[in-house]
Amino acid sequence: MKILLTVAYDGTNYCGWQRQANGPSIQQTLEEALERLLGNKVKTTASSRTDAGVHALGQRVAFDAAGLKIPLDKLPRVLNGLLPRDVAVQYAQAVDAAFNPRFDARRKTYVYYFSNTPHPNPLTRQSLHIPHALDITAMQKAAQYFIGRHDFASFCATGGSAKTTVREIYACEITGNVTLTITGNGFLYNMVRIIAGTLLYVGLGKIPADAIPAIIEARDRTRAGKTLPPEGLTLLSVDYDVFLPC
Amino acid sequence: MKILLTVAYDGTNYCGWQRQANGPSIQQTLEEALERLLGNKVKTTASSRTDAGVHALGQRVAFDAAGLKIPLDKLPRVLNGLLPRDVAVQYAQAVDAAFNPRFDARRKTYVYYFSNTPHPNPLTRQSLHIPHALDITAMQKAAQYFIGRHDFASFCATGGSAKTTVREIYACEITGNVTLTITGNGFLYNMVRIIAGTLLYVGLGKIPADAIPAIIEARDRTRAGKTLPPEGLTLLSVDYDVFLPC
Repeated sequence: MKILLTVAYDGTNYCGWQRQANGPSIQQTLEEALERLLGNKVKTTASSRTDAGVHALGQRVAFDAAGLKIPLDKLPRVLNGLLPRDVAVQYAQAVDAAFNPRFDARRKTYVYYFSNTPHPNPLTRQSLHIPHALDITAMQKAAQYFIGRHDFASFCATGGSAKTTVREIYACEITGNVTLTITGNGFLYNMVRIIAGTLLYVGLGKIPADAIPAIIEARDRTRAGKTLPPEGLTLLSVDYDVFLPC
Repeated sequence: MKILLTVAYDGTNYCGWQRQANGPSIQQTLEEALERLLGNKVKTTASSRTDAGVHALGQRVAFDAAGLKIPLDKLPRVLNGLLPRDVAVQYAQAVDAAFNPRFDARRKTYVYYFSNTPHPNPLTRQSLHIPHALDITAMQKAAQYFIGRHDFASFCATGGSAKTTVREIYACEITGNVTLTITGNGFLYNMVRIIAGTLLYVGLGKIPADAIPAIIEARDRTRAGKTLPPEGLTLLSVDYDVFLPC
């Protein structure tokens, strides 16, 4: 039986989703809990290989659980008893054996939180503190330009493995004080953090809102804003062709 | 010159406000930063001696700063550069030499956050996770009974130093999913955490909402709910007779 988990985590103390030699990963933490439960080696596959320090509320993780003896509705609570406080399973459901959480993903939504206050708030760790005045209206206008099917080469860090830099963005908006919410059919390496950095430059008056189309058109990484740090980024949800509740 | 700071902190990694031998305190952390800045010994006084693990957004802290050479409006940023990430000064203002942030406090507001979801959310650390269904309407009704001038002996842990257990509560309400906000002229030792625990018992159906007046009347700690853990508690604000912005 293949099981799909919805997993939330605070990425602060992890080297990212993927197993690495240089520190604890979410993948290793989760696989160790699953191995204690199942009594055999477990290999997980995630919808998104989130970077070091990036958070998630709706990461999707699949694994084969041939020997599972616990009912699916009890699985999250049992697993959470084996997991550290900064990783928590939210939901568990059975999926087809052929299901792949990464390649079958159709839409992903990320949020990037800015904390726009004079001084940092220690109680909101999952945000980037910006003490400067921001032109929210300009940021909202600029965000609209990202919607649609574009070549996002200007918003892609080197080191990615994507075959094409074309992606489709379904929604991109700036709300509150200040949250970027962006939904697309997929994202290039560091794409959300570079878009967030470009929108921040718009908010700070360093880039005019209506310069965004030309920056996209240029397909030149140096034209966009800088890559913002991981702490403000959270993977909110991942959607598939079939409805898979989270 | 006496200076009043408004200080926010995540109390998770501290033994509370007050200096103690058994671990780092907020007071010690703040005094060390002030001493590095002023070049002399500094003694701070806080409005509230928050317990281990309790958070603050609007703690008030006074100290004598005879040798301060930095303009007051620059002080928060300079201090925050010397403080760890989980403590941050929000505001600094001059006050009279006779001002005492503890004894001159007229109103304090605390919030206790419950995270009422099936599984814990690792991104909301400053809350108590309650996976069970809560009767919010009953909690809202029960909260009303705390408003007014009462002897709160039923809601006071042993070990406090208060001369009287009479306090006046100006506002007490339950909102959202689920937040207790309570304002009073002062609070007994663990009083907010015991009121929160009693309201939680009401939400869980263990105590009827209309039993609250009799529990207050009894002046008996064993009649109230249990003391909830510190992680859900945040000192929101402290008010004085004169307006002191935070």
